[in-house]
Amino acid sequence: MKTIIPQPLPVPLAKAYRLLNHGPTVLVTSANGSERNVMAAAWNMGLNYEPALVSVVIDKATFSRELIEASGKFALNIPARGIAAQTLAVGRVSGRDLDRANHVDKFSAFGLHTFTGADATLPLVNGCVGWLECTLIPEPHNQTQYDLFIGQVTAAWADARVFSDGRWTYGADTPTDLQTLHYVAGGTFLTVGDAFEVSPAAPLG
Amino acid sequence: MKTIIPQPLPVPLAKAYRLLNHGPTVLVTSANGSERNVMAAAWNMGLNYEPALVSVVIDKATFSRELIEASGKFALNIPARGIAAQTLAVGRVSGRDLDRANHVDKFSAFGLHTFTGADATLPLVNGCVGWLECTLIPEPHNQTQYDLFIGQVTAAWADARVFSDGRWTYGADTPTDLQTLHYVAGGTFLTVGDAFEVSPAAPLG
Repeated sequence: MKTIIPQPLPVPLAKAYRLLNHGPTVLVTSANGSERNVMAAAWNMGLNYEPALVSVVIDKATFSRELIEASGKFALNIPARGIAAQTLAVGRVSGRDLDRANHVDKFSAFGLHTFTGADATLPLVNGCVGWLECTLIPEPHNQTQYDLFIGQVTAAWADARVFSDGRWTYGADTPTDLQTLHYVAGGTFLTVGDAFEVSPAAPLG
Repeated sequence: MKTIIPQPLPVPLAKAYRLLNHGPTVLVTSANGSERNVMAAAWNMGLNYEPALVSVVIDKATFSRELIEASGKFALNIPARGIAAQTLAVGRVSGRDLDRANHVDKFSAFGLHTFTGADATLPLVNGCVGWLECTLIPEPHNQTQYDLFIGQVTAAWADARVFSDGRWTYGADTPTDLQTLHYVAGGTFLTVGDAFEVSPAAPLG
């Protein structure tokens, strides 16, 4: 994997939803004791401005779910095209099926490097362009009935090359490897294209 | 507004989530008796395959919420770039503030044309490229606490020019007006770019 040096700058919590607004696929990272994991999730969205809340769907069968319910926290990492192959892979393999006794986890298996932000126990993934560290807000009915998890964002970061002043800055000169990933199906993603600005339509006379 | 003739083809319910997977901003439409409304929502996501469930955040202050809670249904329409200005406008103006006594609603105020799908009472918006008709699954705690609404998809449609065989078909030759909208902030959207395919990363040896 090409190593992309992260350049994370803090994002104010009230603007954290802006990282998810345009609908990127995310990598959900989690850790509990000596175990850690990463999975892909296309089903995520902002839920509130202040406090900053987000939601994400985490299937009952996943190892991530076990770690998140035990630790009460998770992070949403926004992968860029440079790690598209790894994003696809960690969405297909379960951390449960790796040689965990020999310290093989999905990060090491697929060459994903990590760093930490505000929480020293929560892995954040290199090659991503945005990161939201979250505390789980326990909602047993939602978790059981819908696999729906709600988190309060406690710290947020973005790659200054593509996000500044509270907004994405994608344009024609953005390196392809920094584009966010928008999952279609199979092994296919859509990339974000150029930003464009519109004025709201005026009411008809 | 340029009139775009809708070419909606049915989407199997088990594939309806694919319409939202890549994170488009949606238009939420609703109707109750003689009233109807439309609002924009960046916070939406798939929630389940079968039955097909979706979720969307609908603020307490909105007129749409009143109509949805009264009628028990709503539709998610996926607007394309051809109606970006209208999408922005209906996200900023409340249906409550229009001259409803004289039958002015947000559709007529901003020149949005509608048609109907399976439910003859639920307006679907021309100029969109995907449509999901939904029955509200009442979840009072989620609605009150988080403004979070869950719907079961009862019918889904897509514009055959950009969606077929259960997936988006965006490419270099797709007319710009048919690109989905991915909201950034202010009056700025990102468009979807080209699709690309990757093979999942192989585990490191």
